[in-house]
Amino acid sequence: MLQLPKKISEAVEQLSRLPGVGGKSAQRHALFLSQLTGAELLNFSDVIKDLTTLKKCNDCGLYLDDENCLICSSSKRQSSKTLCVVEGMTDCLAIEASDQYFGLYHILGGVLNPLLGIGPDELRLDQLKERIVRDEITSVILAVNPSVEGDATCAYINDDLGNNISIERIGFGIPMGGSFEYLDPLTIMKALENRKRM
Amino acid sequence: MLQLPKKISEAVEQLSRLPGVGGKSAQRHALFLSQLTGAELLNFSDVIKDLTTLKKCNDCGLYLDDENCLICSSSKRQSSKTLCVVEGMTDCLAIEASDQYFGLYHILGGVLNPLLGIGPDELRLDQLKERIVRDEITSVILAVNPSVEGDATCAYINDDLGNNISIERIGFGIPMGGSFEYLDPLTIMKALENRKRM
Repeated sequence: MLQLPKKISEAVEQLSRLPGVGGKSAQRHALFLSQLTGAELLNFSDVIKDLTTLKKCNDCGLYLDDENCLICSSSKRQSSKTLCVVEGMTDCLAIEASDQYFGLYHILGGVLNPLLGIGPDELRLDQLKERIVRDEITSVILAVNPSVEGDATCAYINDDLGNNISIERIGFGIPMGGSFEYLDPLTIMKALENRKRM
Repeated sequence: MLQLPKKISEAVEQLSRLPGVGGKSAQRHALFLSQLTGAELLNFSDVIKDLTTLKKCNDCGLYLDDENCLICSSSKRQSSKTLCVVEGMTDCLAIEASDQYFGLYHILGGVLNPLLGIGPDELRLDQLKERIVRDEITSVILAVNPSVEGDATCAYINDDLGNNISIERIGFGIPMGGSFEYLDPLTIMKALENRKRM
């Protein structure tokens, strides 16, 4: 049977590592890339190579262009004494886009997942505890996605941080524009649990 | 508002060029890549850079590992005197997987699309005509996907090749496992047009 050349197969293998990209899409991507000019391909590959030199904020863990983290260095945000704990930078971007949160962030870098070998040591939990003490944080908001692993991670953090500070988890329920007809029973259960007096 | 670092934005820009990858997916991909180790990233970027040295068969246009095209050099396939014209290598892989075609291939490299600036000169049409004469091809199968552009391309090739050889287009109708309930009216129209005596 006709097979893809080795160079394309290798590209397929690498591209299928991207989240949500299966074998078929990776093959389509690889063949698309094969059609590009040499200069375009080099540009593509260089831009990806450049990610090796990306910096991270030592405090919150956000990716940075230079050493200075705009969020951690903001005195207004520092004075809020509030820390929003998120899994990754995308969550942080989404929360910032809502323009409703004005405190600091802390990127965990994932959630506890024993099957994938992600234990407490793989997450930025020690840094979290250090920051809470050093920056005199009084309130922690756990904006971790709802999933078995997310729930376990929140429970772990709650136990770990002790009773001296306020620890809250983001609210769950029907999303805006959502419709009962299309929502799963678990979301509806959470929405009923979290009902609020009008 | 919080923005992605320039290096990640550049990666997002490049990754969103991939077919079917929108801004959101590209951002997810770029952030996934940012989390990889330096060695993994270099490997990823090198594999893509390697595509610049990919070879193509001068006859059919398939991508190759070395100069030798297994399909064009097969005497069994040569003796069929049949040429299957496809848009790209993925179509060829799909047809080969069906294990029902034993002739030669000819990759067009796309379809006519005036809006994208793809005219007859951008496709491998001159090579097609040369091959038909040189290899004494007697039958051409147009396995071009059904679309406005695909139909126009087939009409153009049909006019261009003249009346001396058999030119056929692949059959259209209900796909195996398909159900009338979920098929579009155009497919059903084609299926009615192409009905066959039992």
